[in-house]
Amino acid sequence: MTMRRLINGTPDQVLEPADRGFMYGDGLFETMLWSNGVIPLWTHHMERLQDGCSRLGLTSPDETQIAQDREQLCQGEPSGVFRLQITAGVGGRGYARPPVPKVTRVAAFTPVPRYPLAYWRDGIAVHRCRMRLSRQPLLAGLKHCNRLEYILARGEWEHPDFVEGLLLDQQGHVAEGVQSNTFAVVGDRLLTPTLVDYGVAGVMRGYVLRLAESVGLRPQTGRFSLGTWLQADEVFMTNSLIGIWPVRRIGDSEIPLGPVSMKLRAALLAAGIGLESILERGVV
Amino acid sequence: MTMRRLINGTPDQVLEPADRGFMYGDGLFETMLWSNGVIPLWTHHMERLQDGCSRLGLTSPDETQIAQDREQLCQGEPSGVFRLQITAGVGGRGYARPPVPKVTRVAAFTPVPRYPLAYWRDGIAVHRCRMRLSRQPLLAGLKHCNRLEYILARGEWEHPDFVEGLLLDQQGHVAEGVQSNTFAVVGDRLLTPTLVDYGVAGVMRGYVLRLAESVGLRPQTGRFSLGTWLQADEVFMTNSLIGIWPVRRIGDSEIPLGPVSMKLRAALLAAGIGLESILERGVV
Repeated sequence: MTMRRLINGTPDQVLEPADRGFMYGDGLFETMLWSNGVIPLWTHHMERLQDGCSRLGLTSPDETQIAQDREQLCQGEPSGVFRLQITAGVGGRGYARPPVPKVTRVAAFTPVPRYPLAYWRDGIAVHRCRMRLSRQPLLAGLKHCNRLEYILARGEWEHPDFVEGLLLDQQGHVAEGVQSNTFAVVGDRLLTPTLVDYGVAGVMRGYVLRLAESVGLRPQTGRFSLGTWLQADEVFMTNSLIGIWPVRRIGDSEIPLGPVSMKLRAALLAAGIGLESILERGVV
Repeated sequence: MTMRRLINGTPDQVLEPADRGFMYGDGLFETMLWSNGVIPLWTHHMERLQDGCSRLGLTSPDETQIAQDREQLCQGEPSGVFRLQITAGVGGRGYARPPVPKVTRVAAFTPVPRYPLAYWRDGIAVHRCRMRLSRQPLLAGLKHCNRLEYILARGEWEHPDFVEGLLLDQQGHVAEGVQSNTFAVVGDRLLTPTLVDYGVAGVMRGYVLRLAESVGLRPQTGRFSLGTWLQADEVFMTNSLIGIWPVRRIGDSEIPLGPVSMKLRAALLAAGIGLESILERGVV
């Protein structure tokens, strides 16, 4: 099965090379997991998309249009990845948008990635990225389409032992993963970096922060050093597809596996959220 | 006349929504002026493109291919804008590129913008942008396709009195214009911001720096305060299309017009470089 897609709701429309998404990365996207006939945390994805559109000055498409795309692409599939991209569309001279941009909406469906179940059960090794994230409060938190920093970071390693990369900011604080958010367990605290200056405020990050108290932890966002991560009781990565991956190594440093990420994993499995339950049941 | 374009050298090919240029802004572009049957400073544009591809890990297309695009789109036209975009093409999972990306090459031709000649002769008013450029040495200088900061900055003003915007960095240093580079004349020095941390190293910026001594000035790149710009003897903006626009106002501050920008303007006119000579002769 290859990628299927809709542009502005139709399979026939082609993408204009003058689309501002192509010319300037002028847009946003959401990556969502289709699982058991639903997209878990759908309302959170839609809220983030609307918030992002609003911050970038774009008119968010109607949620019913997006739901129609979802039904048209996903219905009848046991599982898959539903990706939605909104751009500022065609037009405008140079960087100036038209007064009322007519957004382009691209929905795409692909099979789920078949990661080994060991990533969830035994944890992953994470590369320490040399690329340092820039500070831009006006874009921080958004899942926007300007992703060159992440592409450069992802290009730092080829060895398949490393499944993810850990990104620091320019002061050396832990920021996030290349395609995920990151958490550390220290005593009874669940730490995750604040994303007011950079980073993607993941839907799964929000979900895990809300779950924290149910596993006896006090959630805390802030600025944390790499040392805090390397000496943590546990470290794990999250995103909407994977749910939670425990981290067993960052660069050359071993990280202990522990009960918290396993409890959170179990909570996600029980709620049918994340790729692990799909791969475990083989419904791909 | 509308936009004409070629994708990978042909008018028939369509752009894939899975192109990394569309998904992530994973690419570079050059904006060039077609004038009198040539593109002034062509070799500098090609060098910058090759350098940019190399820094982003992309294989630059052969210059003869690009020259063929240019001939196919521009030949027979009295003037126009030739824009070339190179992206990392289709493929890869998430931010990881394929091991050898097959680049997408999009060439487009549009008529020249018909700016009033007063912009050159009487100078322009420049908005003081609130958006502060982020610091990212790995991308600094490149004309890459991650342009959201510039789009946000350009969205700060609508009033047509303002023709350009002046961008500062997060420490308050002058950085560049939204679509141009900026210079200040202070005594016998020609100042322009260093672009090691952000910004686009314009081909016209390089040309003007090389011209400086011919008009009796010592070129100097460095970090300069907004105050230096507001108190300068002269300020002007440059890019490959406009050549040079003197600045007569930055925000509420009047800036004197002076002889240096007029001498450099005359040098560009004499060399047939920049839009002014096209508009003056009416060859649009």
